[in-house]
Amino acid sequence: MTPPTVLLILSFLIPLTCSLSPAGEPGRLEEYRTVARRLLEAALRDGEAYAMLQELTARAPQRLSGSAGADSAVIATKRMMESRGFDRVRVEPVMVPRWVRGPVEKAEILIPGRRPISLAVCALGGSVATPEKGITAEVVEVKSFDELHALGTGARGKIIFFNRPMDPSKLNTFEAYGGAVDQRVRGAVESAEAGGVAALVRSVTLSSDDVPHTGAMGYKEGSPQVPAAAVSVRGANMLSDFLKKGARVRLRIRLSCATLPDVPSSNVMGEIRGCERPEEVIVIGGHLDSWDKGAGAHDDGAGCIQAIDVVSLIRRLNLMPKRTIRAVMFMNEENGLRGGKAYAAAPERSTEKHIAMIESDRGAFAPRGLTVQADSLSLEKVRLWRSLFEGLNAGRIEKGGSGADVSAMVGKGVAGFGLDVENHRYFDYHHSANDTIDKVNPRELEMGVVVLALLCYILAQEGIG
Amino acid sequence: MTPPTVLLILSFLIPLTCSLSPAGEPGRLEEYRTVARRLLEAALRDGEAYAMLQELTARAPQRLSGSAGADSAVIATKRMMESRGFDRVRVEPVMVPRWVRGPVEKAEILIPGRRPISLAVCALGGSVATPEKGITAEVVEVKSFDELHALGTGARGKIIFFNRPMDPSKLNTFEAYGGAVDQRVRGAVESAEAGGVAALVRSVTLSSDDVPHTGAMGYKEGSPQVPAAAVSVRGANMLSDFLKKGARVRLRIRLSCATLPDVPSSNVMGEIRGCERPEEVIVIGGHLDSWDKGAGAHDDGAGCIQAIDVVSLIRRLNLMPKRTIRAVMFMNEENGLRGGKAYAAAPERSTEKHIAMIESDRGAFAPRGLTVQADSLSLEKVRLWRSLFEGLNAGRIEKGGSGADVSAMVGKGVAGFGLDVENHRYFDYHHSANDTIDKVNPRELEMGVVVLALLCYILAQEGIG
Repeated sequence: MTPPTVLLILSFLIPLTCSLSPAGEPGRLEEYRTVARRLLEAALRDGEAYAMLQELTARAPQRLSGSAGADSAVIATKRMMESRGFDRVRVEPVMVPRWVRGPVEKAEILIPGRRPISLAVCALGGSVATPEKGITAEVVEVKSFDELHALGTGARGKIIFFNRPMDPSKLNTFEAYGGAVDQRVRGAVESAEAGGVAALVRSVTLSSDDVPHTGAMGYKEGSPQVPAAAVSVRGANMLSDFLKKGARVRLRIRLSCATLPDVPSSNVMGEIRGCERPEEVIVIGGHLDSWDKGAGAHDDGAGCIQAIDVVSLIRRLNLMPKRTIRAVMFMNEENGLRGGKAYAAAPERSTEKHIAMIESDRGAFAPRGLTVQADSLSLEKVRLWRSLFEGLNAGRIEKGGSGADVSAMVGKGVAGFGLDVENHRYFDYHHSANDTIDKVNPRELEMGVVVLALLCYILAQEGIG
Repeated sequence: MTPPTVLLILSFLIPLTCSLSPAGEPGRLEEYRTVARRLLEAALRDGEAYAMLQELTARAPQRLSGSAGADSAVIATKRMMESRGFDRVRVEPVMVPRWVRGPVEKAEILIPGRRPISLAVCALGGSVATPEKGITAEVVEVKSFDELHALGTGARGKIIFFNRPMDPSKLNTFEAYGGAVDQRVRGAVESAEAGGVAALVRSVTLSSDDVPHTGAMGYKEGSPQVPAAAVSVRGANMLSDFLKKGARVRLRIRLSCATLPDVPSSNVMGEIRGCERPEEVIVIGGHLDSWDKGAGAHDDGAGCIQAIDVVSLIRRLNLMPKRTIRAVMFMNEENGLRGGKAYAAAPERSTEKHIAMIESDRGAFAPRGLTVQADSLSLEKVRLWRSLFEGLNAGRIEKGGSGADVSAMVGKGVAGFGLDVENHRYFDYHHSANDTIDKVNPRELEMGVVVLALLCYILAQEGIG
């Protein structure tokens, strides 16, 4: 094997001009291998992603759409790109929903003859408030909507407690999440339609602690709107134990959240212009908004910062992408997807041709590959590059989703890509106070940058489809 | 795709008798795939590894060879195997070195006109003590032994400060570790031979904090023995900055460590007897001793507990391995390898035939594959099973080292295997106060169990070589 130092020296001798030499596939693969090694060494040695993520999560730890923190995040990331000399740093406007948590979120278990027992809860995003004095009602536990429906009139006037855990036996935690999150999203609607007065949902997480996990929920036009809260896993288990023992359990819930009128906000973007086909664009993005309980370090501060560092790294190494590589911080993924939709609908899009939409929104863990949301031919083309990604321990290239923010563009036929990472820990932090910078490992964060930068660069040179 | 529930039901219908049906290779692969799924679901749902690791690290957080904690660890793991009904749970005796840290380990930077500045240091394992009043001397910084040699008489009477960091640009942190650890292992010898009075070594870690990382060092017969300590990365950087500024920097070091006479200890083992060839043995092991600064959660409490859980899981699922699968907790990996050597030399070995030696000693992180220390034919055979491991996200099967504890047996020609894991975080914790149970993710720990259990089971059925 050629020693790394020799390869490093060689890499600086290879002329990086705009046009790649018309080498055959194996020759180009070798060029990309050299690029991969340069990206790897530069990112692991001098990568700025962790420092930028520290800055973002310190300056704007709470970035829910429409909040002051979200404004700070727009300003901070715009400056990060400007100060690094990106081309065409700008914002694109988008109106976003504004939901505020308010100061009160409390729940107590009331059992005759005992003192009230506090439960760790938080309002679900989008929930209406309770009356100021709270809602006090009996609790009924269900594990599914079918169980709820089977209660018939037994649900009337009750607080419906949805307590189906994520299935721990799934290897892929996103699959386990998908199997439980319906309770959070639709719990309030189903509760109201069954005659319930509020929904209390077991936190959608695999960790067993006292931290409630928030997330989006919705209402249905024409149905009553009842408040909805998440309860920590330990709280859910305690409540369930009381119910199992046959105690007459009532719950008092107080939430002070509210939905205010939409407010203006923006997506943020900057790029390195393609030297040959600047109007052809590869987007690498994450979402700038995050839930307000933690600092959104993994979800999705990391994805935004990785996007910035991808473009920054490609610039620093004087790589010359033929096509434009654009870092986009989408606003409002968590409770509206307005940023992704606005990007797709912006007038400027009609003057551009998008080659690929790439998103990193699965946490800043060690990357293990890519998910590809495109036709089979495109997938096969990407798989020709597998050995390059294998060299970065990221050789899993599978058909799969890309990301919520990029879905509007992918829906128009643009090839979508998602960064696939080790995800055992992700839902321990997701949408909760646990999602803070100390849970991010700088090297794992940077390895995401390396994999994404390599993908962006190859797509800029080769196109897809 | 067949739904998981159907596969689960099917898996219980497959008769698990001692002899596998004489199915061709594809048929057997399908049987193993079913076994893999059962192992996965059982481990992720009901695995006991995390609870056992909590117990071990709580009962015996300090398990340096020869210590009371090491004795507790022997008793605790023996009971874990006995209470789970393992076959032939026993200890095998081994004499181990006994090095004790003692109560004092301090270092101060002395600069004329300034108050002494404290440095976070710890004695390296095996070091002699300083005189009680300490050693006070000027400091000279080097990045390599060559630099030290080039100092000539300039090193005389000095404290030699070895300050070469791990190379952060390496993808494989073990490679980066290998490129820096010579300073820790040989620093004292080189210092003494150059006329130095003590060695101070930058902690061999990639994290930048105030926590010193210990580890083994040695002396050379006939050379003077000077004390050796590790300094935290931040401490090393501070000291280096003072030296760069040209200050006349002296250091006062006090260490109270000592090497006492060897003491009796033991390896601990238990097994599931093979139903067809019980005298043929597959060993899965880790090392029970650990450095005393942390709780040895990753290094290598995890490996020991995984070994126990592997055998436990195979028993619980009523799998019937043809050959014996033995969990071995080796004593004294960190500062002597006496356990591994004693295992290889024990009289009972002559009545057994060892098929494979497997070790988990790279931290309890998400597994990504196996390293195989065997001839090419064996490697090729293991690669025939790759799709099974790919199904567990652990399909990297590469030639590579197995483990220190099993090296004596591997040296005799037995095939060696190591669990390969995501290792970006490992050296942040390694040999330091950071190596505690809260750094271990229960699912990542259990995934190691699944991969190791599958490997053990296939080897028990198929043999190797």
